[in-house]
Amino acid sequence: MKIRVLVSFKESVLDPQGQTVKNALHSLGYDFVKDVRQGKVFELEIDDLPREQLEVKIPEIADKVLANPIIEKFEWEILE
Amino acid sequence: MKIRVLVSFKESVLDPQGQTVKNALHSLGYDFVKDVRQGKVFELEIDDLPREQLEVKIPEIADKVLANPIIEKFEWEILE
Repeated sequence: MKIRVLVSFKESVLDPQGQTVKNALHSLGYDFVKDVRQGKVFELEIDDLPREQLEVKIPEIADKVLANPIIEKFEWEILE
Repeated sequence: MKIRVLVSFKESVLDPQGQTVKNALHSLGYDFVKDVRQGKVFELEIDDLPREQLEVKIPEIADKVLANPIIEKFEWEILE
């Protein structure tokens, strides 16, 4: 099965990459873009696991390896 | 309104970051993870635009700024 984990900075954390992208878009005339936040996405191909195990293992992996819980938050979903 | 753009390597492109994450997970005992692909996610806060304009502007932005169309693909969705 396939799991998608989205990792992004917490709201309170500055996102200089996102700012740079926003500035680039404005310099190209895309002024309708008001704000940009950049994050990471991980697509995990995993062995089939029951839902209750996923709900333990995926947050565990996200906290230990994929995200830095001090400054980042994550969300996940089953793709297939 | 809020738009999410997901950018990832095309299937044919090697993903060394994803490989490194997979190896880290295996070394921690998470052997049920078979493959990892890493990509970028952009959350854009934009002025309200009609659907038909979004369908022109968002792919334009993605191709010009957010992704490198030679090696990356993107998908997008309206969040709110």
